[in-house]
Amino acid sequence: MEIHHVSILGPGLLGGSLALALKKYCPEIKVCLWGRREESLQTASNMQAADMYTIDLPDAATWADLIVLAVPVGVMLPLVKGMEGFLKSGRVLVTDVGSVKSSVHREVGKWLSVRGIDFIGSHPMAGSEKQGIEYAEADLFWGAMVAMTNEEQCPTELVERLAAFWKSVGGRVMMMHSDEHDRVVARISHLPHALAATCSRAAYQDCESIKELLKALAAGGFRDTTRVSMGKPSMWAEIMLENKQEMLLALEVCLRELTSLRKALQDDNFSCIQSWLQQAGERRRLIYPEDKA
Amino acid sequence: MEIHHVSILGPGLLGGSLALALKKYCPEIKVCLWGRREESLQTASNMQAADMYTIDLPDAATWADLIVLAVPVGVMLPLVKGMEGFLKSGRVLVTDVGSVKSSVHREVGKWLSVRGIDFIGSHPMAGSEKQGIEYAEADLFWGAMVAMTNEEQCPTELVERLAAFWKSVGGRVMMMHSDEHDRVVARISHLPHALAATCSRAAYQDCESIKELLKALAAGGFRDTTRVSMGKPSMWAEIMLENKQEMLLALEVCLRELTSLRKALQDDNFSCIQSWLQQAGERRRLIYPEDKA
Repeated sequence: MEIHHVSILGPGLLGGSLALALKKYCPEIKVCLWGRREESLQTASNMQAADMYTIDLPDAATWADLIVLAVPVGVMLPLVKGMEGFLKSGRVLVTDVGSVKSSVHREVGKWLSVRGIDFIGSHPMAGSEKQGIEYAEADLFWGAMVAMTNEEQCPTELVERLAAFWKSVGGRVMMMHSDEHDRVVARISHLPHALAATCSRAAYQDCESIKELLKALAAGGFRDTTRVSMGKPSMWAEIMLENKQEMLLALEVCLRELTSLRKALQDDNFSCIQSWLQQAGERRRLIYPEDKA
Repeated sequence: MEIHHVSILGPGLLGGSLALALKKYCPEIKVCLWGRREESLQTASNMQAADMYTIDLPDAATWADLIVLAVPVGVMLPLVKGMEGFLKSGRVLVTDVGSVKSSVHREVGKWLSVRGIDFIGSHPMAGSEKQGIEYAEADLFWGAMVAMTNEEQCPTELVERLAAFWKSVGGRVMMMHSDEHDRVVARISHLPHALAATCSRAAYQDCESIKELLKALAAGGFRDTTRVSMGKPSMWAEIMLENKQEMLLALEVCLRELTSLRKALQDDNFSCIQSWLQQAGERRRLIYPEDKA
């Protein structure tokens, strides 16, 4: 199996960017974009993002060596079911770009695997705040980490081929288990989103009379801490539910942390608050050693 | 009373920047820097930050028309007490740059007021992450909001003079009550700090075995959401304790918010999570209307 024809299902930010990236970096690969609505395909076509555009799922399925599911995680299973009979075992590899991996393997991977069709999960850590193909960029994946998960144990050769595919559009590939992936993204992406939203929400509670002051005094710290809370609510609600168990665990950790800070404040325990903050800085420094206090 | 001689107590980031700003924008004003340690005064002197440097508190006190307390809030009262007898009623105005205002008025303002000495609170919303005079900049206050609080009801003329002083170094002045100030900064600065620290702390709990993955996958969202947690722990522990009541209230709001998100997740309540996130975005947009989702 070589990758000559790629069908990207979902002409959104990620799907559109992948199409543009292939055009730029792998012009020998032909790209088909499938979408539910003519409208976004028209936009994609105006951008000359692909070689072929279709709203016909079997068309997209039969055409491809590689199928990339670039749709919300919740619609992946109905979509692959819609391709049943048009996907040929041993001829096609299916992957996705979903931001959770365990549930994708549990549903999509398993369903395909039972039918002898190869599935390997992908999560390119790129561009989640802006939405829609109009923001698509050929270099979106350049330098981005791409997590890959192989719960259905596809042969090494296929894993290597998919890794090479992501590398060819600039990705840095890392293999991991889907449960490790989901715990990590809960902590570095989904929980930060919930905390940023909490911070935005908390600003206005019991502050009706001083709204103008909030607005006037808010500076860079508030801006940065809350930035990701501007993401699309429906998309993030979905992501959090898809990663429900890890999100609940992460929220437990947070509630415990905030409760212990509250206790230290109530007790006027300066050294406890100081070491709580100190440890926070140290943990962040493990991730970004170059950032100075 | 005109402002000809300013004594800045505390040659740190804010004090040092104010000295440099006065030199640049108000060269007619003479500046004295007081510090506890010769060492930081030497650094200030190498930077030619002021006209005079002293470790003698009475010296700094008798010299000035305006005294700026640029030391941690907790040492302000001992410091003004150390100037007793050297501060002349009607001849000197005292202000500060502390990040809380109620406790400063309750302690420092009241103590001075009883002795007939004018005190007006100031909080320039500028530079809190980096520490020390080596990071001082003449333009630190340029465009920064300066909250001013006048709980001891100094005459309008003095308020206007202090406002003009802050404007001359680039500040945008806003009068408010100290309790309004403290509530607002709890929400837009102190709570964001606590949440950023919580986010950094939570990343590593139950994740010992996947530390390398955390590091590899952490992207811009985590970086921004946690940035302020790199502030100096002792300074922030102090600030949180000085604003204890408002911090406890803000933490209550947060715990309630996170608990309701947890409940919605447990119930698989998509529309509840979505509207919770939606409202977060809307509230942030009230503060930063120009930021797009």
